[in-house]
Amino acid sequence: MSRTDVENSASHDANRSNSIVSVPSYQATTRPFIGRLGGNQGFVLDRHNAANAEILKEQPDSAPCMTLKEQFDLRGFRSLGLWKAALIEGVGAMMLIYVTIWISLSPSALPALPTAQFGPFDNATFIGPLVGGITNWFLVTLFTFSLGSVSGAHLNPTITIATFFARLCSLPRMVLYVSFQTAGGAIAGMLIRASYGSRDFKTGGCWLFSDVVPVSNAFVIEFVFCLTLLFMAFGVGLDPRQKQVIGPALGPFLVGMALGVVSFGSGFTRYGHGGASMNPARCFGTFVGSRFPGWHWMHWTADIIACMVHGFFYFIVPPWQENAQAANF
Amino acid sequence: MSRTDVENSASHDANRSNSIVSVPSYQATTRPFIGRLGGNQGFVLDRHNAANAEILKEQPDSAPCMTLKEQFDLRGFRSLGLWKAALIEGVGAMMLIYVTIWISLSPSALPALPTAQFGPFDNATFIGPLVGGITNWFLVTLFTFSLGSVSGAHLNPTITIATFFARLCSLPRMVLYVSFQTAGGAIAGMLIRASYGSRDFKTGGCWLFSDVVPVSNAFVIEFVFCLTLLFMAFGVGLDPRQKQVIGPALGPFLVGMALGVVSFGSGFTRYGHGGASMNPARCFGTFVGSRFPGWHWMHWTADIIACMVHGFFYFIVPPWQENAQAANF
Amino acid sequence: MSRTDVENSASHDANRSNSIVSVPSYQATTRPFIGRLGGNQGFVLDRHNAANAEILKEQPDSAPCMTLKEQFDLRGFRSLGLWKAALIEGVGAMMLIYVTIWISLSPSALPALPTAQFGPFDNATFIGPLVGGITNWFLVTLFTFSLGSVSGAHLNPTITIATFFARLCSLPRMVLYVSFQTAGGAIAGMLIRASYGSRDFKTGGCWLFSDVVPVSNAFVIEFVFCLTLLFMAFGVGLDPRQKQVIGPALGPFLVGMALGVVSFGSGFTRYGHGGASMNPARCFGTFVGSRFPGWHWMHWTADIIACMVHGFFYFIVPPWQENAQAANF
Amino acid sequence: MSRTDVENSASHDANRSNSIVSVPSYQATTRPFIGRLGGNQGFVLDRHNAANAEILKEQPDSAPCMTLKEQFDLRGFRSLGLWKAALIEGVGAMMLIYVTIWISLSPSALPALPTAQFGPFDNATFIGPLVGGITNWFLVTLFTFSLGSVSGAHLNPTITIATFFARLCSLPRMVLYVSFQTAGGAIAGMLIRASYGSRDFKTGGCWLFSDVVPVSNAFVIEFVFCLTLLFMAFGVGLDPRQKQVIGPALGPFLVGMALGVVSFGSGFTRYGHGGASMNPARCFGTFVGSRFPGWHWMHWTADIIACMVHGFFYFIVPPWQENAQAANF
Repeated sequence: MSRTDVENSASHDANRSNSIVSVPSYQATTRPFIGRLGGNQGFVLDRHNAANAEILKEQPDSAPCMTLKEQFDLRGFRSLGLWKAALIEGVGAMMLIYVTIWISLSPSALPALPTAQFGPFDNATFIGPLVGGITNWFLVTLFTFSLGSVSGAHLNPTITIATFFARLCSLPRMVLYVSFQTAGGAIAGMLIRASYGSRDFKTGGCWLFSDVVPVSNAFVIEFVFCLTLLFMAFGVGLDPRQKQVIGPALGPFLVGMALGVVSFGSGFTRYGHGGASMNPARCFGTFVGSRFPGWHWMHWTADIIACMVHGFFYFIVPPWQENAQAANF
Repeated sequence: MSRTDVENSASHDANRSNSIVSVPSYQATTRPFIGRLGGNQGFVLDRHNAANAEILKEQPDSAPCMTLKEQFDLRGFRSLGLWKAALIEGVGAMMLIYVTIWISLSPSALPALPTAQFGPFDNATFIGPLVGGITNWFLVTLFTFSLGSVSGAHLNPTITIATFFARLCSLPRMVLYVSFQTAGGAIAGMLIRASYGSRDFKTGGCWLFSDVVPVSNAFVIEFVFCLTLLFMAFGVGLDPRQKQVIGPALGPFLVGMALGVVSFGSGFTRYGHGGASMNPARCFGTFVGSRFPGWHWMHWTADIIACMVHGFFYFIVPPWQENAQAANF
Repeated sequence: MSRTDVENSASHDANRSNSIVSVPSYQATTRPFIGRLGGNQGFVLDRHNAANAEILKEQPDSAPCMTLKEQFDLRGFRSLGLWKAALIEGVGAMMLIYVTIWISLSPSALPALPTAQFGPFDNATFIGPLVGGITNWFLVTLFTFSLGSVSGAHLNPTITIATFFARLCSLPRMVLYVSFQTAGGAIAGMLIRASYGSRDFKTGGCWLFSDVVPVSNAFVIEFVFCLTLLFMAFGVGLDPRQKQVIGPALGPFLVGMALGVVSFGSGFTRYGHGGASMNPARCFGTFVGSRFPGWHWMHWTADIIACMVHGFFYFIVPPWQENAQAANF
Repeated sequence: MSRTDVENSASHDANRSNSIVSVPSYQATTRPFIGRLGGNQGFVLDRHNAANAEILKEQPDSAPCMTLKEQFDLRGFRSLGLWKAALIEGVGAMMLIYVTIWISLSPSALPALPTAQFGPFDNATFIGPLVGGITNWFLVTLFTFSLGSVSGAHLNPTITIATFFARLCSLPRMVLYVSFQTAGGAIAGMLIRASYGSRDFKTGGCWLFSDVVPVSNAFVIEFVFCLTLLFMAFGVGLDPRQKQVIGPALGPFLVGMALGVVSFGSGFTRYGHGGASMNPARCFGTFVGSRFPGWHWMHWTADIIACMVHGFFYFIVPPWQENAQAANF
């Protein structure tokens, strides 16, 4: 296939940039991916164009409405582009996780008790998530802009696994992304230890004094906040009905707002618990840098269950519908 | 009827997405509903197009100017699409109510008295509604974007009942939505109890020490703030005259701002009262998770009366007007 | 005249909504009014179109450049539409005044003295106007959106009287609006007393300890801040030169910002004075709910004088200019 | 070549300004530079237009896809335009560095220890970076707008060196820019000493008590934050795929946000360290104004290594791609 065909069908911005800059022998490369966060499924290929057949063999999630068979096709592991995108996911996750751990880092001791006058608002347990929520908002916005056209800007196993269960991400892409994200988190954790000069720290979103708050309680918090984040992130960043309403300049801003508000909101209410993680690779990195607790499994299982529940609702009330189907809504 | 006809008349964004993405056999499904919050009555069917007759039998509120007979037509209970939308309302309400309860949760004791120096601004009773108001703003904005094209994003019995009295919502839809929203609130309350590990808590917007503040006083506060919210929410999110002025990207932001400012503003003035609820399902869920007080009826009656008063003004000064009618304004 | 003629000449948004929604027998009704706040004189009739003659008899302020004779024509009192608009003004003023009184309510005692360390920034006298200014901003924005197309969203006798002196409002409309606004304020005051359970309160913008601050000083503060508000509100919400620059979506936001910044800025500097009112109906309602002081006349006279001074400047430097006139400005 | 030819091919905004302003004998001059921050590679020449050959001899970075030979061509040192741009870089860097040092200046003593109740949030070490981050955001936004069309608005050796390693900046331009930026920083430092009347001060982003925090730890912090800044700044301000998504009005805003969030986020976590510099010329100026510590080399080496790592990723996953190349992504 010719490069021009891909560009024509894939993304309107690449086309427009050509006509303005007038550089006939080079083109900006926007990688089509239906699961791109913040793009609202707008940067995709046409599955019915024969010229795209070859690329769709290796990356079936470059176009809408991938079949189950395509999703589990293992030929994707041979795609060099997929490995590059996964590498960028890993580097991006490393940077995002390093910065967000650093901002929310505190000594590993149990914080001061809430006072009678101000309740939870009167100590670092309130100001920490406040700062974390606002910086998360801006950082996720900036990273979603920066890496969206390369890898889809997931930077978080939960987002990748959720797109997998919503059938917006192939199995090879999911495996590669999650592996590189987790490795990026581990490197970030080791860099944090080198920056802090000690492994005696805890991180907002990843700490829990399990003698104060039972792990089962933390599991429920993790699950519901994660499910909420998925509904909002898909609603503002991955919903084809929003492509015209929100547009690609507002989408990443709203995705960042969604993460910011839940990471703030889950953090200060319960004494002894540091808030929902919603990004298991970030907590994995934290524990690589400090020490692994017995309950880290909870970050992964609660999030993956939330991805599956979200995928179930996505399946029964999908945003796409076959043309021929009789409308009975 | 063919799917294409619905899309052509229903929503401009669905049409545009087709032409850009060029996916001939799948289409984004935006469900037409005149009572959609944040859409300013822009995502509707044409009642005079014969192709829409069948769908309008079951969902007469998919087009403007439903008659009373249509509104009370019980055939809507047989519409699978309506049940799906109500299910999504329930799930969305569960998530929104869980998160907003968690953010505004505090121990069930009476808070500290205001000080002489700062008055009401000097304790958790001020910072709580401040945090609640700001997070309500962002959460309602995000949920209104995320669920607007599926169910209309009410997530609150007061909004649904208000659209019913403004004749923008059919009886079956109202019954199903309110039921699922209330059930979602109850589930959220039980999840909160599991997350907090105790039923000794109170929630901003749902607490009242009736020995300090008489229930009659709280009733007045609930009624006036709820009426104010309805005027503002209808003015920025359900007014066909605003469709061009505000647009679908600003609408949900302003709807969230309206809820945020009243939930903040009603919360800190009167010692012993936690502010207006304006969402009875949220208080119902709170009490399922903690304990039912004797005055919970007040959240429902004050809100429903506000819906009726609002409906009365909507009836005498409607935004729509028959073409043939002589203008005498 | 036919309804369609009014719509064609009156407002562009009504026309567009027709063509998109395709509802041939119903139309959104935007009431043309040259004094509409936030619309920058954009929603008006064409005085030279014979079809509008009948409506202009009763509502001469539906088109630009009303003559003095038309302004004082008493036939407007027979216009049903004008009474409806005034009723909505009353309801809206009641809600806005109730909410803004409630937010700025405090016990009626003199507040604590400023401290040596922080000066005026260290007590409720600073935080009160800060909260009041920010909530005023958002509330006025939302109400200006919500009621603009019905009544012009004045909700304040000062705005109505200022448009009267700027010849943007007929005498009957002015009389009706101010009466209903003041009645709405009185009802709000009684509801506040029912909500607070006592008449021992004071309200930001409406309190003064005249033994600490002489009434003459408060008069000057009231006059200058009110004049400032009028220049800003007319500049961003009633200036035809801004129609293209600001647009109807930004206008109400800037009008709210203007009120917010002056109500904040006038409130904390002088110990013993609660800030400029700039809305006499709001203070009237406060005193109906609490007790009338001897100096309430000051809120009316200072504001009306500010309206007259503003009207004088509007007359000598008008924003409209006749086409035939030789330009020598 | 004639000046008009350059303008026609160089930049669309220059062209548009001609047609709008209609001043035939004067034209706005936008200097084409592929490495312009905030322009997303949109203000460039066409390398295949013979009329541009002469200008591309001296400034090969005026067009995309410069070869290595062109990048190291020393003829650029003879370009008067390049010296002018470098001079403006120096003046701009002097102003930006003076203002941002002044805002974040504090006495040179070690700050107070964090308290048990609030942790790092309870002293000037938290409020300082907070104020610094927010003002950096707005200042960088404004300077990027102001100087973008003259010099590309780097104002920071790290940005210039990063564009060099990404092959978006020629060797002569890099040498001249970095020299003038560093000289501007030195002048700013002397002006600060004259303004503060003492050399006993330290500056946010440039201080470190190496007996409390080892230099190696600070090196890691500097490196990772700098790498993160480069990914974000290139992603929102130098990425040709973002030209249509972000546009030239949002770009500088996001570039400022990127710098603001990392300069805030790196500043308060570790007691005894004032945060990442990410602009060695600013710290050089600080030390010219106060005293040089033994570890200033760290600001330069960590930043240059980050530029090289970023350049490596830019090389293996480039945003441009040759048309003829077979797509295998």
